[in-house]
Amino acid sequence: MIALTLDETRTLAESILRHNGFSEPHVKAVAEVVWAGERDECASHGLWRLLGCIATLRNGKVVADAEPELIDQAPAIVRVDAKGGFSQRAFQMGTPVLVEKARNSGIAAMAINHCVHFSALWSEIEVLTEAGLVAMAFTPSHSWVAPAGGSKPLFGTNPIAFGWPRVGKPPFIFDFATSAVARGEIQLHERAGKAIPLGWGIDADGQPSTDPSAVLNGAMLTFGGHKGSALSAMVELIAGPLIGDLTSVESQQYDAGSKSSPYHGELIIALDPKRFLGDAVDHHLARAESLFEGIQGQGARLPSQRRYDARERSLRDGVKITEKLYEDLQALLV
Amino acid sequence: MIALTLDETRTLAESILRHNGFSEPHVKAVAEVVWAGERDECASHGLWRLLGCIATLRNGKVVADAEPELIDQAPAIVRVDAKGGFSQRAFQMGTPVLVEKARNSGIAAMAINHCVHFSALWSEIEVLTEAGLVAMAFTPSHSWVAPAGGSKPLFGTNPIAFGWPRVGKPPFIFDFATSAVARGEIQLHERAGKAIPLGWGIDADGQPSTDPSAVLNGAMLTFGGHKGSALSAMVELIAGPLIGDLTSVESQQYDAGSKSSPYHGELIIALDPKRFLGDAVDHHLARAESLFEGIQGQGARLPSQRRYDARERSLRDGVKITEKLYEDLQALLV
Repeated sequence: MIALTLDETRTLAESILRHNGFSEPHVKAVAEVVWAGERDECASHGLWRLLGCIATLRNGKVVADAEPELIDQAPAIVRVDAKGGFSQRAFQMGTPVLVEKARNSGIAAMAINHCVHFSALWSEIEVLTEAGLVAMAFTPSHSWVAPAGGSKPLFGTNPIAFGWPRVGKPPFIFDFATSAVARGEIQLHERAGKAIPLGWGIDADGQPSTDPSAVLNGAMLTFGGHKGSALSAMVELIAGPLIGDLTSVESQQYDAGSKSSPYHGELIIALDPKRFLGDAVDHHLARAESLFEGIQGQGARLPSQRRYDARERSLRDGVKITEKLYEDLQALLV
Repeated sequence: MIALTLDETRTLAESILRHNGFSEPHVKAVAEVVWAGERDECASHGLWRLLGCIATLRNGKVVADAEPELIDQAPAIVRVDAKGGFSQRAFQMGTPVLVEKARNSGIAAMAINHCVHFSALWSEIEVLTEAGLVAMAFTPSHSWVAPAGGSKPLFGTNPIAFGWPRVGKPPFIFDFATSAVARGEIQLHERAGKAIPLGWGIDADGQPSTDPSAVLNGAMLTFGGHKGSALSAMVELIAGPLIGDLTSVESQQYDAGSKSSPYHGELIIALDPKRFLGDAVDHHLARAESLFEGIQGQGARLPSQRRYDARERSLRDGVKITEKLYEDLQALLV
């Protein structure tokens, strides 16, 4: 294993992105979320993702110097047209406007359009909880997942994320795919030659399968049966047609077999507790703590606890990556 | 079985509510959703619910003549204080303001406070999709459900509902509990002396159980493991402290063993596709239809299809209720 400080992680990410031709705003914005992924030991959203970023660039599926355009769509809606660039820069540009609109109106939405998206949603949610807002985020992906009762890929892995600001504590945040598992989890099983549990997916004939390759060529399933399937459809609708952007099927078609990151939109909703509660905001945010105590007091975990524990470790001790990954990353600097 | 026309259903509901002392606005508002439940063959939200309504009144847990107060909380937030009455009248009062705010701002929220809530959320969502809006609704209930990894009741059955307006077709609507099943489903098994499947709940010692009585005295489980549990926590937060209202634990405490309907709040979010999309709204709403075709084209069902089929039947043929229910209802008119 190769040991890196978190600063070295960021510098490495920035160097790779810069060397491969990304403009400086994209270098900074993308390196920031890669750094955060590594810091929280979300390996699949850390330095490893840079391999996919550069592959997407070389496939011609992302614009390295896109300058997003901010559109003041409505009193409580801001749109950011990412112009084919990675989503992070668009998110950075739009966020101050979203925050201002949420504080003015009480609730507001940000639609990011025409972006290439690979990052976890929690890193975006956390920016909003730091501003004292409650936030939700939704985005489609590529069509890999069958609807409940169906047998053909239609939905993306369609994550839903939510954040709640806590006073003096890390925020309550969850961020999960509406598929039974992440696609990468099935790919890891395939690479390791291991069977997957029933319930993750079906083969091309629509039959339940424990063969990762058969499922990757068939369809993944949603979590929680018809309920997860309904939520996945909601994500398609509100982060697709509602914001004038692609569904997962359309993103897949646009990809045309290049296996690049999805190209589509994202919807973020922010709610301001101060506008909902006025002077009573401190009282009610304190009441929310009793819910967290009720969860942890019976030995259950809060959704992001593992990340926050990892963060504490990484900030103190740095991180470790495999030599193979380190070599693959160095190869992107040649 | 007793056959009733849908008009007779409504008249019967109104008579019972009026006879038991509800003020005329509540009579009309509650009878409307009971009628809609019967029409869509959602028996648990139809005439049967009137038994619970009247029991709640006799327990002193609902105000029969509450006059809700409308509060213009923020440019995109309307609050309705139901003053201890059933939620329906508050929803009716607030909805025109919510619709106006969504059309002005693009997105808006309605918080209903201090209401007694027993109706399905789909009937509320449908009012908003009829206005051409996309809508979401959330409400806690009583604390019956353990968080994933825990063993003690903390969450309510905490439904999430969503609606999408369709041109010339019934809306795409889902409305489901974040518990594995509705509490009534477990009660039905108990009454029939039947075992329940594993995964619905745990006994008072936190052990998985197929005994409905043990689970009713232990804790229900969420659907979809930790993901459903995270969603349930979200509902507690955004339809509880965020709107200054009770969590499911607090609602349970307020109930003090009377087994009345939950007393708490509800959060409804409405989004206006016209404000998100401007002139392109028709184009993108038409694109959304390809998603529904993708679901139905592979033999899967849309979430509300069963209700819409039932509606067609009921509007044509009327409905049938058991003699036992008819007698129980007649007894409320004495």
